[in-house]
Amino acid sequence: MKIILDAMGGDNAPLETVAGAVLAAREFGIEVVLVGREAAIKAELAKHDTAGLRLPIVDAPDVIPMDEHQPSTVWKRMKNASLVVALNLLRDGGGDALVSAGNTGAVVASALFILKRVPGIERPCLATIFPTRNAKRPMLIADAGATPDAKPHYLLQWARMGSVYMQNVFGMQAPRVGLLSNGEEEVKGNALVQESFPLLQGAGLNFIGNVEGKDIPTGAVDVVVTDGFTGNVVIKLAEGLGSMILGLLREELTANLFSKLLAAGLQPAFKRVRKRMDYAEYGGAPLFGVQGLVIKAHGRSNARAIRSAIRVANQAAERGTLAAFQQIGAAPAPAAASEVTG
Amino acid sequence: MKIILDAMGGDNAPLETVAGAVLAAREFGIEVVLVGREAAIKAELAKHDTAGLRLPIVDAPDVIPMDEHQPSTVWKRMKNASLVVALNLLRDGGGDALVSAGNTGAVVASALFILKRVPGIERPCLATIFPTRNAKRPMLIADAGATPDAKPHYLLQWARMGSVYMQNVFGMQAPRVGLLSNGEEEVKGNALVQESFPLLQGAGLNFIGNVEGKDIPTGAVDVVVTDGFTGNVVIKLAEGLGSMILGLLREELTANLFSKLLAAGLQPAFKRVRKRMDYAEYGGAPLFGVQGLVIKAHGRSNARAIRSAIRVANQAAERGTLAAFQQIGAAPAPAAASEVTG
Repeated sequence: MKIILDAMGGDNAPLETVAGAVLAAREFGIEVVLVGREAAIKAELAKHDTAGLRLPIVDAPDVIPMDEHQPSTVWKRMKNASLVVALNLLRDGGGDALVSAGNTGAVVASALFILKRVPGIERPCLATIFPTRNAKRPMLIADAGATPDAKPHYLLQWARMGSVYMQNVFGMQAPRVGLLSNGEEEVKGNALVQESFPLLQGAGLNFIGNVEGKDIPTGAVDVVVTDGFTGNVVIKLAEGLGSMILGLLREELTANLFSKLLAAGLQPAFKRVRKRMDYAEYGGAPLFGVQGLVIKAHGRSNARAIRSAIRVANQAAERGTLAAFQQIGAAPAPAAASEVTG
Repeated sequence: MKIILDAMGGDNAPLETVAGAVLAAREFGIEVVLVGREAAIKAELAKHDTAGLRLPIVDAPDVIPMDEHQPSTVWKRMKNASLVVALNLLRDGGGDALVSAGNTGAVVASALFILKRVPGIERPCLATIFPTRNAKRPMLIADAGATPDAKPHYLLQWARMGSVYMQNVFGMQAPRVGLLSNGEEEVKGNALVQESFPLLQGAGLNFIGNVEGKDIPTGAVDVVVTDGFTGNVVIKLAEGLGSMILGLLREELTANLFSKLLAAGLQPAFKRVRKRMDYAEYGGAPLFGVQGLVIKAHGRSNARAIRSAIRVANQAAERGTLAAFQQIGAAPAPAAASEVTG
């Protein structure tokens, strides 16, 4: 397998991206194509022992800023950007999958324009791996931001792709698929949820029905489908709440000298919790629906997170995940309820 | 002021509800009308020193189960339930506001049917107080579940009511109002957000623009408006994530004897964090849009949470919050964009 890495994408590029590529090339025995500024990449590679590793460089002089304000058009304005060159390389068969920790909007929009959509897949989905109580069993949220306004048939396709992905990449047998809904009320769900439910029920998936926000972190569901608006709020809130809770604990624990000393002894435990909460550890967010395997790593990725994303990309490619997505696109749309009323 | 309490509503009723009423009657010098099974309430009252306190009982023999499966019709099936009797009492002027820790769906549906809607307010909103990093400054999410499918004009009315509520009940000057949106992408928001933005901008509120999920816990915004579907996912996820993170910490901290001993010394700090995270502390969820002040306390409320909810109900009543809501309902609807397209 040959994985293409956008070596200039991410807050810590190319330092951490190159280090991650070196880790992955050694550990998995695969080729990692480094796309970006040749001189900068060479300087980073020189810091590592790369003897026997397959780490070719493809030069791309431009870099898309992480805070790029018009990410949707960057693919035509910056043809020599590392991300754009990397995507063209993927499209032209120069690799089996692509990893980028660059600007999310730029990755999604450029992948759509350069790779095009899988025929029959109606909308893209940036699925995101989320940690749960069970460290061995993360879950996937689809969509987490690519398509804010969804229709029932989109959710069905995302559920199918998410199910295949968790099978192929995390080895799950019959992943449990849940439809994110609101609770408490008798009539659960908004119009989208109510219309999507029967589609998911009839899809031959291991559909466990509606799930609520509180079910997400428990590990009771493997694939949560929702519109990209709600999914994005979920992952952002989780990020914010994690920091808030750990921040409150830090405040309370350093309130006096006694507890400050105690807290110092507990640092390793805190660090392990932060690590278990850190979704960068789980290998990045696959972009479903484009003609190529694209994994978006977190912008803050360190070498280990890049290595994880490359591992995931490699695994997805080995198991023929793109071909499975193409089959899902080729399946006939269900006759009923493809429009949201109300 | 006279506050009506559904003494039988909640997981711990009437034990904790009556205890909370006693606390509130003493501390705030107000009358609290206890609605429910007279004998049971009297037995609870006998456990407290109630000399000089105004705690009249209104008998209501039936109790709506917390797991009631058809909450939307319970108001007509159980006319003698404590909640139904309490709402009739509020409607007929027997009190200034009502507190219930009962089944959420039953409270929302029964309040709508018995109290009716405020003229001009299009849809109800169960706003929910949420803790932030700043213990002194909680924020409000409107809606958190009453109206899963929203339109721009609903969000505008909820923003106005939320702003008044945070002024009246928490003494905030010009509360900062934010519109919950997704981030990262260039074109932010779903269709609802994009159409609601200009309405909120032109409303004379202290509108700070779009906010993301990660901004909710920081204390950077006082009123977050969103549809009841997303808002419900937010509060449920926060509940689930809080348990998950504290659970992970417990696991890590008891992994060996050394850290188990250290952790024992830190119990008070953990307890303080749980308390700061516990939204029951902040006084319950106001139901906006009905002809009466109704505060929904958390089902798990203990006496302190009931006391907080009564305090909040009393404060809202004293400041003329219902009259302010009626004025909002009477304001003419904005001409543009009251339908979501797409």
